[in-house]
Amino acid sequence: MRMIDLIIKKRNGRELSKEEIDFMVGGFTAGSIPDYQMSAMMMAILLKGMTDEETVNLTLAMTNSGEKVDLSKVSGITVDKHSTGGVGDKATLVLLPLTASCGLKVAKMSGRGLGHTGGTTDKFECFKGFNMALSAGEFAEAVELRGACLASAYGDVCPADRKMYALRDVTGTVESLPLIASSIVSKKLAGGADAFVFEVMSGSGAFMKNDDEATELARSMVKLGRMAGKKCSAVITNMDQPLGAAVGNSLEMIEALETLKGRGNAETNELIYALGEQMLLIGEIASTKEEAHKKLKEAIDSGAAIEKLKEIVSGQGGDIRGIDDYSYLPTASITEKIESDLSGYVASIKCDDIGNAVRILGGGRLVKEDEVDLSVGVVIHKKVGDRVEKGESLATIYANSKEKLEEAKEIFLSSYSFSDNKTEHQKLLHGIIE
Amino acid sequence: MRMIDLIIKKRNGRELSKEEIDFMVGGFTAGSIPDYQMSAMMMAILLKGMTDEETVNLTLAMTNSGEKVDLSKVSGITVDKHSTGGVGDKATLVLLPLTASCGLKVAKMSGRGLGHTGGTTDKFECFKGFNMALSAGEFAEAVELRGACLASAYGDVCPADRKMYALRDVTGTVESLPLIASSIVSKKLAGGADAFVFEVMSGSGAFMKNDDEATELARSMVKLGRMAGKKCSAVITNMDQPLGAAVGNSLEMIEALETLKGRGNAETNELIYALGEQMLLIGEIASTKEEAHKKLKEAIDSGAAIEKLKEIVSGQGGDIRGIDDYSYLPTASITEKIESDLSGYVASIKCDDIGNAVRILGGGRLVKEDEVDLSVGVVIHKKVGDRVEKGESLATIYANSKEKLEEAKEIFLSSYSFSDNKTEHQKLLHGIIE
Repeated sequence: MRMIDLIIKKRNGRELSKEEIDFMVGGFTAGSIPDYQMSAMMMAILLKGMTDEETVNLTLAMTNSGEKVDLSKVSGITVDKHSTGGVGDKATLVLLPLTASCGLKVAKMSGRGLGHTGGTTDKFECFKGFNMALSAGEFAEAVELRGACLASAYGDVCPADRKMYALRDVTGTVESLPLIASSIVSKKLAGGADAFVFEVMSGSGAFMKNDDEATELARSMVKLGRMAGKKCSAVITNMDQPLGAAVGNSLEMIEALETLKGRGNAETNELIYALGEQMLLIGEIASTKEEAHKKLKEAIDSGAAIEKLKEIVSGQGGDIRGIDDYSYLPTASITEKIESDLSGYVASIKCDDIGNAVRILGGGRLVKEDEVDLSVGVVIHKKVGDRVEKGESLATIYANSKEKLEEAKEIFLSSYSFSDNKTEHQKLLHGIIE
Repeated sequence: MRMIDLIIKKRNGRELSKEEIDFMVGGFTAGSIPDYQMSAMMMAILLKGMTDEETVNLTLAMTNSGEKVDLSKVSGITVDKHSTGGVGDKATLVLLPLTASCGLKVAKMSGRGLGHTGGTTDKFECFKGFNMALSAGEFAEAVELRGACLASAYGDVCPADRKMYALRDVTGTVESLPLIASSIVSKKLAGGADAFVFEVMSGSGAFMKNDDEATELARSMVKLGRMAGKKCSAVITNMDQPLGAAVGNSLEMIEALETLKGRGNAETNELIYALGEQMLLIGEIASTKEEAHKKLKEAIDSGAAIEKLKEIVSGQGGDIRGIDDYSYLPTASITEKIESDLSGYVASIKCDDIGNAVRILGGGRLVKEDEVDLSVGVVIHKKVGDRVEKGESLATIYANSKEKLEEAKEIFLSSYSFSDNKTEHQKLLHGIIE
């Protein structure tokens, strides 16, 4: 078998067999297939597409290229939740303890976030001492013991995907549906859970810029996961404005804690119920959405959810004092209200600009090596559809540098546009694939 | 400017500017743009195409990447002839002395052939001592002095094309019209002539497998050359069976010598008149096809053409005795007739198989380093449309190894198919673009 023949086959729009895909992924991981052939192949895949069969074979080849977690000894159905990422997305912070307190086994494997704010692992580092660098065995044990565990994706998970992603990043081959879907699902499969709920964001602040793209990716991931023998569902959510109110690591954690304590805002509540219902259904903790909803609400109302969080955090060595007393969480030194210089109804918010503003404050990273300042960010008071008077506060900004604050504030202000006529509130849920 | 942005632009079907193409070709030649980015770009070009403007800018960037010949001091219009290559194509061998003897200035730059038989430079090496390794200055001088010169393409002509071609060869990006056309024309432009005649072969023994593809390439090269300020025309010829009778280096030279002496077969004559007319017209030696035809015929009939060949060969240090006495040309030790095992009309000849048979005899090369045996080959007696009786000779085979002869013979025989019903003779000329 020769890689050049596979490139020509794909370039001509033909389907690669399982053997051919295994040869390609294996050879590329081992280094016998050079970058220049793989990049030509990925451009051909981007422009010519892949069938479902090809995509699942690519996914499995990438999963099998490295270490895999064995969760077979955990009792019950283990569930992992994935998010494609967006501005202010704190769903996982709430759902990990919330669904575990309902009896679900949550095995959450997470990477460091690249972008506006940190990833889930960064946000959990708000609890000093919280340890996510677990071995596969420790991870499985913790899931069984406490019902939920968050571990950072370790060294040798999907080396093929890591190498392919690095090459895609510099060859204009990121935006390919089969390559995106297989990259995400291969890592989820390596994490060992029995079932997955995918949260796919749609809008200017997300990787998928509109509902068509987001729905296509969601459908593709669900199909892929099922072809690989896993239970899957997906929730498509709005990312044309930040999710909820807070954007920034410890600010999002505070919003998550408030939600777990029953004081969440309407939007964040809507999000975590939609996702939580899917998680309980797929994990067979509930058999209807109504039943799932009731269990989630009871866990919040009874305090079971927030207690479960304390159990998880202390179980992984973290300082739980921040759960009740937010002064133990990373706190910014400067707080300032951002006042509107216009009156009107909020017509749109450039969501990616809000993300950029928080990154400029130090709350996100552009490259893996960047340090993240967990304390900075914004809490938004006015969203699309809200009425604002000139001088009224749009948001509160949290910073550790006056200079960065001014820069971020300017970007924040210019991200808002107003209308004299009443505008509609944006819908959060754009679709569910079950 | 960043290469990744150019890749994404082309991938999305947009047009690259002159500055962008210069950046890409310059960076790739210098090594600052890595192979893996260039291969992704070339796959995007193959699948998304290039406009005429982009293709001419690519061509000029490749020409300007290396050394160029200056023929401005040569009096009159200098003409170069290019062939895309085919089985038994000996047109250049005849046309170089023939058109020069009519007063044309022929500046022929040629590479080593890869494939069934050698290239024009290999074939001229049948004259012992013939020296084609000339400097740009010696080349120009020889064209002015004798009216024609054949030089091998030297070191640093179009390094960008050389590097791109090597990469295309291993990444499935050879078969792209703008990449093929720019590769050919860039090297022709570097050769410095004022005008070009392109011979484009069409059929199973050629790179372009049908008339549509061949015509598209011919049109594209003529347009490219004209956009670069050169006079151009193209002749599209049949390559569904070998050209004329001989296939193999010294055998083709003998057929060329016979043609120059007025004893050429009808097909080879038709070919050299069609191409020769275009060369004399474009070089302004004749103003009508009829006038050009008359001049070519007179040069053959008067012996001027064969005398011109002697002048060229001795001028470049070659042994001219082989021009009159073929025993001075490389001669194979074994000669055998290939007899037909069937009766009927020749319906088709797998032209690439004939080429392969000659390559197996040692007459061609697969990689640049292969030695070519100039003496071996076949002379074909029966072509498509001819009636053959069982036991009649299809061809004579010339070899230096009994074993290779048997292998080549088997391939040769299986390349013929016969019909009981009368078949048509194939048309040689498929089109002229003037």
